[in-house]
Amino acid sequence: MGSSFGIAIVGCGTVGNATAALLLSESDNFYRKTGIKLTLKALVDINFDRAREAELNDSLFNENLASVLEDGTVHLIVETVGGLTIARTIIEKALKSGKHVVTANKALLAHYGAELFALARKNSVSIGFEASCAGGIPIIRALVDGLLSNSNEALYGIVNGTSNFILTEMVEKGKTYAEALKLAQAEGLAEADPTLDVNGMDAAHKLTLLGSLAFGVSIPLDDIPVEGIDGLDLFDVSMGNDLGYVLKLVALARKTEKGLEMAVKPMFLPDDHPLARVSGPFNAISVYGNAVGHTMYYGRGAGGSPTASAVVSDVLSIALGTWSTLFSTLTIWPDRCEKARLADSGESIHRYYLRFMIRDVSGVVAKITAVLAEKGISLNAFVQKESHEGKLVPIVITTHEAREKDISEAFNTIVGLPSVDNKAVRIRIIDEHPESL
Amino acid sequence: MGSSFGIAIVGCGTVGNATAALLLSESDNFYRKTGIKLTLKALVDINFDRAREAELNDSLFNENLASVLEDGTVHLIVETVGGLTIARTIIEKALKSGKHVVTANKALLAHYGAELFALARKNSVSIGFEASCAGGIPIIRALVDGLLSNSNEALYGIVNGTSNFILTEMVEKGKTYAEALKLAQAEGLAEADPTLDVNGMDAAHKLTLLGSLAFGVSIPLDDIPVEGIDGLDLFDVSMGNDLGYVLKLVALARKTEKGLEMAVKPMFLPDDHPLARVSGPFNAISVYGNAVGHTMYYGRGAGGSPTASAVVSDVLSIALGTWSTLFSTLTIWPDRCEKARLADSGESIHRYYLRFMIRDVSGVVAKITAVLAEKGISLNAFVQKESHEGKLVPIVITTHEAREKDISEAFNTIVGLPSVDNKAVRIRIIDEHPESL
Repeated sequence: MGSSFGIAIVGCGTVGNATAALLLSESDNFYRKTGIKLTLKALVDINFDRAREAELNDSLFNENLASVLEDGTVHLIVETVGGLTIARTIIEKALKSGKHVVTANKALLAHYGAELFALARKNSVSIGFEASCAGGIPIIRALVDGLLSNSNEALYGIVNGTSNFILTEMVEKGKTYAEALKLAQAEGLAEADPTLDVNGMDAAHKLTLLGSLAFGVSIPLDDIPVEGIDGLDLFDVSMGNDLGYVLKLVALARKTEKGLEMAVKPMFLPDDHPLARVSGPFNAISVYGNAVGHTMYYGRGAGGSPTASAVVSDVLSIALGTWSTLFSTLTIWPDRCEKARLADSGESIHRYYLRFMIRDVSGVVAKITAVLAEKGISLNAFVQKESHEGKLVPIVITTHEAREKDISEAFNTIVGLPSVDNKAVRIRIIDEHPESL
Repeated sequence: MGSSFGIAIVGCGTVGNATAALLLSESDNFYRKTGIKLTLKALVDINFDRAREAELNDSLFNENLASVLEDGTVHLIVETVGGLTIARTIIEKALKSGKHVVTANKALLAHYGAELFALARKNSVSIGFEASCAGGIPIIRALVDGLLSNSNEALYGIVNGTSNFILTEMVEKGKTYAEALKLAQAEGLAEADPTLDVNGMDAAHKLTLLGSLAFGVSIPLDDIPVEGIDGLDLFDVSMGNDLGYVLKLVALARKTEKGLEMAVKPMFLPDDHPLARVSGPFNAISVYGNAVGHTMYYGRGAGGSPTASAVVSDVLSIALGTWSTLFSTLTIWPDRCEKARLADSGESIHRYYLRFMIRDVSGVVAKITAVLAEKGISLNAFVQKESHEGKLVPIVITTHEAREKDISEAFNTIVGLPSVDNKAVRIRIIDEHPESL
């Protein structure tokens, strides 16, 4: 009892400062609960304005990473710089200096996780990354520990809080995409440059990591079909709502006979779907295991304090040695497992929401349904709004289950019809995944 | 790599047999993921009829526990006998023989957890009990690992699947309590003797364990105010529903200025409360931490296969050594922490649903509201159904926040009024817990 464990945080932004504050304020509690004294040794950055704003003590500030890495009393580096360049160098240097690393950097791990994990092993240290996926929700631990007894069958996540906040504002308050994005930025939920959030890539980064651990395979980021919420129209959000669906940016990975199906896309969920109620900045991940059935994990997917919660839990687990045991023993990490066999996304089976804009020409509806019928696609609902002469009239169709490829071909054929405008929309509908119990 | 870890299961009922089946069918997967060969060495019972039905191999059957405990290749005993007597003896013998123990026995741990944990430490082994609370949901791990960085502020659980199934049938299908209970039994969701499920004691057992780990204190089972669903009337379930509330059996533990408030009672949750949608046999636990805010864990709270998922995850964690590290190092276990300072439940502050049956006498409504006003209790809603001469007429009141003690006194005064029948109902209304972030 009473061992000391030294920590340096590199990057004094929102997460770095919140982590420092949590380590400092709860130090006695952690000691009482674990017998380990977590000691914050240094805050490393080149600018300490935000750290000063957060009222962190000047004596911790250090511009010299090398000196921190040489300090034998520092056992672990928390990287909260973000991005793919400097952060990568920092982590590599830390690992080579024999320091454990804890990071929230999903982009970096999605791109270079396998290399970094291997480098950590070579130096007999470990990398904690609970904070990289879904903020404070302990989903990584659930996959590598609590659900380890399962062969997982599917994982569905709402893992980008910014997108979910924007969609919730559109669904519940009828805001346009642009209005909702502006509000997200005003409330500090979206970055000044929100590209990675709204184009789906942030969710794809997380899906690469979560899918890899859930299925024990390595998943190349580039192989995931990704679509963001940035092209969405309020009309479809509202129309889907009227039909009993909620639009969410869903990250999906599931086993099929033809391999692992993966996707990040805006999808419609039926009102009573377990993920349909996950609103605003919250995240949730549903996992379907062969033994446990459906389990779901819900919480704040971003923000300084929730992310710091995950960072510090990693620090504690590494200090205790439990994370290090999992990291060094298990074979489900991306650097230790085979590449996933991914299913051809054209073969995936889903229901669909389709919206076409037609010129008010009698006969075109019959043509549209004929094209769908030809591909064996049967209709579930059909809505034609009142038409005003000369204007484009929306037609909304929901289908029964169909192959993506067939939908895609029918969609393109319909958009090519002379009376159909080329602005058209196609969104998957995801029913609740069946439990195999 | 390649170490072998021997397991014996004592008790060939639903959970024991499902655990055996999972260990046998997934053995290769576990070896691939962990490098450890989990080997099922014996099934111990005095009757193997159900094990034979489950098509488990006769060669594993063993009536002689002593011989299993003497077997040096058996490292861990899974106890799935249940109850407070034989199970206790089995676990004590196993621990004294230097075997780790994994159990789903919440009743036993709620009563004798501290003694058994201490005995395990004395013999340098550990006890895994993920399966004891909320079936397959990895909530114990969340509390002792994923959320370890937090000082928790509150925990709310729907942790008895039988009660939740019965209430869901009453709410959604208008069944009476007796009808719903009968269905639960027919579907194998309720025991032949469902007493502990429907009288709230099973949920109290789990709350003792979960609360203890969430707050790092030991909680005497007898100190928890417990009320079951067995006295509920369909009228109140439906009336609450009309007012926008869902009735759930809630297990609650939360910090207040006056100590830890704990209770297991049927409570009304507003429709949009995060736990309101937890239906049928599902369980969920909401935890509010000072750093992470609200996180929720959802899944099947009972059943052979989901419980076996938790049992085998414990077996894997003990075989890997991670659970043993947490068990031996942390100080939040009931045998290592101080007794909780519990708040006087009379001081707890809640909103209430009140229902009185009155004889159709003008003036009694004024008397009722006067009694409430005298205690400083203000009304939120008031519903009086049409009266038919000579019959008892229900009056339903929802209140704003009030002290339990004041509500109780007002309630008793009202029931004592000459025009009020002594059959009356008082149910807490629980709004969503605020996050302190």
